[in-house]
Amino acid sequence: MYKINENYQKLPGSYLFSTIAKKVAAYTEANPDKDIIRLGIGDVTQPLAPAVIAAMHKAVDEMADAATFRGYAPDLGYEFLRNAIASCDYQSRGCDISPDEIFVSDGAKSDSANIQEIFAQDNRIAVCDPVYPVYVDSNVMSGRTGTYDAASETWSDVIYMPCTMENGFVPEFPKETPDIIYLCLPNNPTGTTITKPQLQEWVDYANKVGAVIIYDGAYEAYISEENVAHSIYECEGARTCAIELKSFSKNAGFTGVRLGYTVVPKDLKCGGASLHGMWARRHGTKFNGAPYIVQRAGEATYSPEGKAQLKEQVAYYMKNASAIKSGLQEAGYTVFGGVNAPYIWLKTPDKMTSWEFFDYLLEQANVVGTPGSGFGPSGEGYFRLTAFGSYENTKKALERIRKL
Amino acid sequence: MYKINENYQKLPGSYLFSTIAKKVAAYTEANPDKDIIRLGIGDVTQPLAPAVIAAMHKAVDEMADAATFRGYAPDLGYEFLRNAIASCDYQSRGCDISPDEIFVSDGAKSDSANIQEIFAQDNRIAVCDPVYPVYVDSNVMSGRTGTYDAASETWSDVIYMPCTMENGFVPEFPKETPDIIYLCLPNNPTGTTITKPQLQEWVDYANKVGAVIIYDGAYEAYISEENVAHSIYECEGARTCAIELKSFSKNAGFTGVRLGYTVVPKDLKCGGASLHGMWARRHGTKFNGAPYIVQRAGEATYSPEGKAQLKEQVAYYMKNASAIKSGLQEAGYTVFGGVNAPYIWLKTPDKMTSWEFFDYLLEQANVVGTPGSGFGPSGEGYFRLTAFGSYENTKKALERIRKL
Repeated sequence: MYKINENYQKLPGSYLFSTIAKKVAAYTEANPDKDIIRLGIGDVTQPLAPAVIAAMHKAVDEMADAATFRGYAPDLGYEFLRNAIASCDYQSRGCDISPDEIFVSDGAKSDSANIQEIFAQDNRIAVCDPVYPVYVDSNVMSGRTGTYDAASETWSDVIYMPCTMENGFVPEFPKETPDIIYLCLPNNPTGTTITKPQLQEWVDYANKVGAVIIYDGAYEAYISEENVAHSIYECEGARTCAIELKSFSKNAGFTGVRLGYTVVPKDLKCGGASLHGMWARRHGTKFNGAPYIVQRAGEATYSPEGKAQLKEQVAYYMKNASAIKSGLQEAGYTVFGGVNAPYIWLKTPDKMTSWEFFDYLLEQANVVGTPGSGFGPSGEGYFRLTAFGSYENTKKALERIRKL
Repeated sequence: MYKINENYQKLPGSYLFSTIAKKVAAYTEANPDKDIIRLGIGDVTQPLAPAVIAAMHKAVDEMADAATFRGYAPDLGYEFLRNAIASCDYQSRGCDISPDEIFVSDGAKSDSANIQEIFAQDNRIAVCDPVYPVYVDSNVMSGRTGTYDAASETWSDVIYMPCTMENGFVPEFPKETPDIIYLCLPNNPTGTTITKPQLQEWVDYANKVGAVIIYDGAYEAYISEENVAHSIYECEGARTCAIELKSFSKNAGFTGVRLGYTVVPKDLKCGGASLHGMWARRHGTKFNGAPYIVQRAGEATYSPEGKAQLKEQVAYYMKNASAIKSGLQEAGYTVFGGVNAPYIWLKTPDKMTSWEFFDYLLEQANVVGTPGSGFGPSGEGYFRLTAFGSYENTKKALERIRKL
């Protein structure tokens, strides 16, 4: 008789955003007349940039003609895209990353969930708390997290690095030495980040203790301050300790297009084993490339027109972020983030729990946000709003919140 | 110090098709004037059907307008696609499969590699030999296959079910009882299949011994004989023992478009655990949906025009299959497959090994095929040619082979 992977049974509840979707669906069904504004899940609302649309139409046409039809993509992704990434995201910033260190994928969510597979079962992971839930959940599924304590909402074998008001949302080196350190900077959900010298300290620490950093740079395009690194490879020594994940979802609105990439430098070695070789093997065995049309869409984001259009799109969302931040402050809320990230992180009022505030906001203002506790125990008492709505809806949501 | 997943180090060589690609690239570089014909990797060559192209253009335009823009897809895939699949691929054949038992993905390769994750580490897998290498390789990576014996090219903990000339390529129930049985029917690489009563025996066997069948139906569209099942759910009792994987790569030429789906019936339970619930959890946590544009492309394959156009495309490739089969037979080769599948499986001449014949064909005829031994030890002494080339190239390749 076959047996199941029992680690799945350890997972409490369902995936955070599935739970929210279900709650909202139930509320909408019970209240079909209500106008719900969604500032919860980090999904974008602006249409794709004209340069991207044009590239996709062209690629679709190529698929209609045997002479230009494309079947299976090269294992790492098309060169035209990897060259554009290497040049624009790395070499132009002085980062020594070559096209053949870049692995094109169907998005950073898949990569951030899959990357743990190339590490041993008994590695100890460290995560910022709160953080994007996929890092911990994917490790739970592979049996790397020990037992779950429902009272503290923590896993026995996970090292949590609290990021709260008290430490200015800057993770501190943990007491126990981790093997794998997940850093999402600018951080989801807090919308905060750390300076380049602070990131350099993490790189030095990882190299010293023999840890690998999984660096999720999904929100890089939103960085507005000068002293913040756009890539971990801006730090000296990162090539021997860091893997970087990037997404096209937030800078280019590709949440429904699906494209991302992972950088595994060839200098990243564990004993004689090359992590680049291992990830290449995984990529070649368990994945078959992002669609040609989507890779052409990705390439278009690096064209001069594409860049200009995306800059406008990011500015549009950051205008929302700014409006949410100042609006909430005026309404008396304590608010963080929103400067280098499209997320606003607020302290819930009146000692409400995160989920209490979720229900309150949904029912009283018909606004959907994300409970901070869904991102880790230190997120309890906080709440995330995203800047990815339309400007009109964002303003409307704020008016409703002010009236509460 | 972090440690790697040592199971990766056990994998001999690289992924089969990566090795072939490298060999062909090396030959092409050394002989730039040669006209190589690729009948190796199972990649299609005909352009996408007009109905698919039209659907993709329309979907791209929707992404250009805020009113019709689509972000993150629903976890299981869009309803329009799941409804079309359930209706056309199942209910029309009398199979009791509902839309919410269908999980849309980026392709059957990913699904066939990922599905093992929901099972316990100590499950014993059984595979047809030869077969698509991803089943075994993904289990190697997760440590389920024991030790590798280089002499016999087998894993100590894998149950091999030889499919050769001697047993008419029909797998027999193994002596040891397996927990997970992979069946790819029509089979890749042999191009052979089994009858519906024979498949019913496998379903009965799995229900009796408590095994789960992972049924890969990637080549279903090529079935031409009456007594062959188009889905395992045509067999009684399959809802309690079988997961079915389907691809759009071969019936619709989506190798570069990337779309597939997996069916996990709600009746499939292990003790109290629902495999449907587990796969839903994996899908929601480690994947973020196939692109909207691609799901619309998939939907178009089920429209009346789409169906008619794909039927023509399949007929085109099957004409190639027929030409290869008869041409090789006339040239004195012993040949199998090509009736219910786009693959031709031939016995290598003069007791050549599979790789010897690969080199021979590449160098003497500039034709690329796939060595049978790459699909499992019982594939040694066989060779696979695919019908996915253009008709002109297929004819040219045959002329060259005949002249050898």
